[in-house]
Amino acid sequence: MHPPPPTITGRTRVFLILGDPVVQVRAPELFNALFRQHGVDAVLVPAQVAAADLLPFVRSVLKAGNIDGLWLTIPHKSAVLPLLDRVDALGRVAQAVNAVRRNADGTLEGALFDGIGFVKSLAAWGVPLAGQRALLVGVGGAGMAIATSLAERGIGQLALFDRDAARSTATAQRLRSAWPVDVQVAPSADPAGFDLVVNATPLGLQADDPLPFDVSRVDAGAAVVDILMKPRPTPLLLACRARGLRAWPGLQMMLRQAPEYLSFFGLQALAQAYDPEQARSLLPTE
Amino acid sequence: MHPPPPTITGRTRVFLILGDPVVQVRAPELFNALFRQHGVDAVLVPAQVAAADLLPFVRSVLKAGNIDGLWLTIPHKSAVLPLLDRVDALGRVAQAVNAVRRNADGTLEGALFDGIGFVKSLAAWGVPLAGQRALLVGVGGAGMAIATSLAERGIGQLALFDRDAARSTATAQRLRSAWPVDVQVAPSADPAGFDLVVNATPLGLQADDPLPFDVSRVDAGAAVVDILMKPRPTPLLLACRARGLRAWPGLQMMLRQAPEYLSFFGLQALAQAYDPEQARSLLPTE
Repeated sequence: MHPPPPTITGRTRVFLILGDPVVQVRAPELFNALFRQHGVDAVLVPAQVAAADLLPFVRSVLKAGNIDGLWLTIPHKSAVLPLLDRVDALGRVAQAVNAVRRNADGTLEGALFDGIGFVKSLAAWGVPLAGQRALLVGVGGAGMAIATSLAERGIGQLALFDRDAARSTATAQRLRSAWPVDVQVAPSADPAGFDLVVNATPLGLQADDPLPFDVSRVDAGAAVVDILMKPRPTPLLLACRARGLRAWPGLQMMLRQAPEYLSFFGLQALAQAYDPEQARSLLPTE
Repeated sequence: MHPPPPTITGRTRVFLILGDPVVQVRAPELFNALFRQHGVDAVLVPAQVAAADLLPFVRSVLKAGNIDGLWLTIPHKSAVLPLLDRVDALGRVAQAVNAVRRNADGTLEGALFDGIGFVKSLAAWGVPLAGQRALLVGVGGAGMAIATSLAERGIGQLALFDRDAARSTATAQRLRSAWPVDVQVAPSADPAGFDLVVNATPLGLQADDPLPFDVSRVDAGAAVVDILMKPRPTPLLLACRARGLRAWPGLQMMLRQAPEYLSFFGLQALAQAYDPEQARSLLPTE
């Protein structure tokens, strides 16, 4: 059920979501439905901005008096950092942000929510963090955000694997210098011996992709998360469920970070009222 | 009656209307209703852009792949000209545009519609142009657009009055060099002897404003247009109607230029189907 139509007027506050491509983003559907539902006179619209155009675009649009902030998606999450006056701790460590707002004093502030969505999903599924051993396979943008939040929340042990070994090494160093956490570089993607195994690679998007790790080697009591949202279910989830493992897709990570955006943009009442299951029903094809 | 709610997705085409202030604009209500009604996946959103920020803003936003064009209102109609590769004849003469689009080859093109809305309103009211004598009081932005369209359509005689005499003189010269039309500078705002008298000054917006000209001196058969839309009716319209003169407000000028925007942005089917009376009903407070 959709709430009544919004009327965009000259008084409407505007947010933009920047990506390249941008056709795949779901945030306008989700957030505009929330705005309508709560009578917030705001709208989130997509903007397909090429990497080379990002900085002048951001600089210009955030000068507009009624454009209050930006959502950032690939490839802009890190590239926007040079423009920001302030970045939250997660964003500073991960060197990436999901959102940028213009503060009352005109400064630009960014924050990272991807990892928060991930750890909130774990909590919702009853997957503990304290004392647990986690293997993260893939330390690209999403993997970095997840690693950062796991480290910040004090996971027992975090092992990073990436086919680019230099990337895992650099990430491990950065996390250790930010928080007192046991972060190691894993020599392989072997999931044996871990309580939590996370795929943060794109493996599974293409029909002929191999699985990101050997599911037969996952501990029987372990939890598996595949951050991919497509296909549904992903090949990794199918393989894990065939083995009777607890395994979840990335959708909740996306749904559970929504209130972070709402709070960040000053919409505390919407953040408080936010229900991820109801939000899921607002996305027509979910 | 409002059509069903739009869903803004990553595929939605985006238009912006730039002004400073921007709270007063009605175009988002009108055009978004038309888009919804015709199933066009597009949205028009406001952007409050200060004059000093205009050129970098326009340059940046029109690089976004899904931002197809801009509506311009005060104070940006003339200031945007330096960025444009092409401007239509009316815009070149008036040195102002209402809209800018990015063409397929990446060039930026502008066009002026205010005057077209005016002459289309005259046609709808049955006010002829050929051989007629018109007095235009006020040659600011709106007045200039009206003068340009009246000259281009071959009004019999056009007299311009502005309290800034240099402005009327310069405008008259510019119009005469563009079209073979009889354009004069009027020594006063005396409406006697004219078939059509147009107020394009802001006089009437403030409660204690004098009337822009002496209504008792208007010829009995003349037509009067007050481009102001507020208050309703304006003091000038009240005075004219009290004398039994035919007199109309500026709303139709705005409503009748809408299809020009639609055609300019490639939405020919919407332009064809456009009905100004139905459009008026789409504006909640009209």
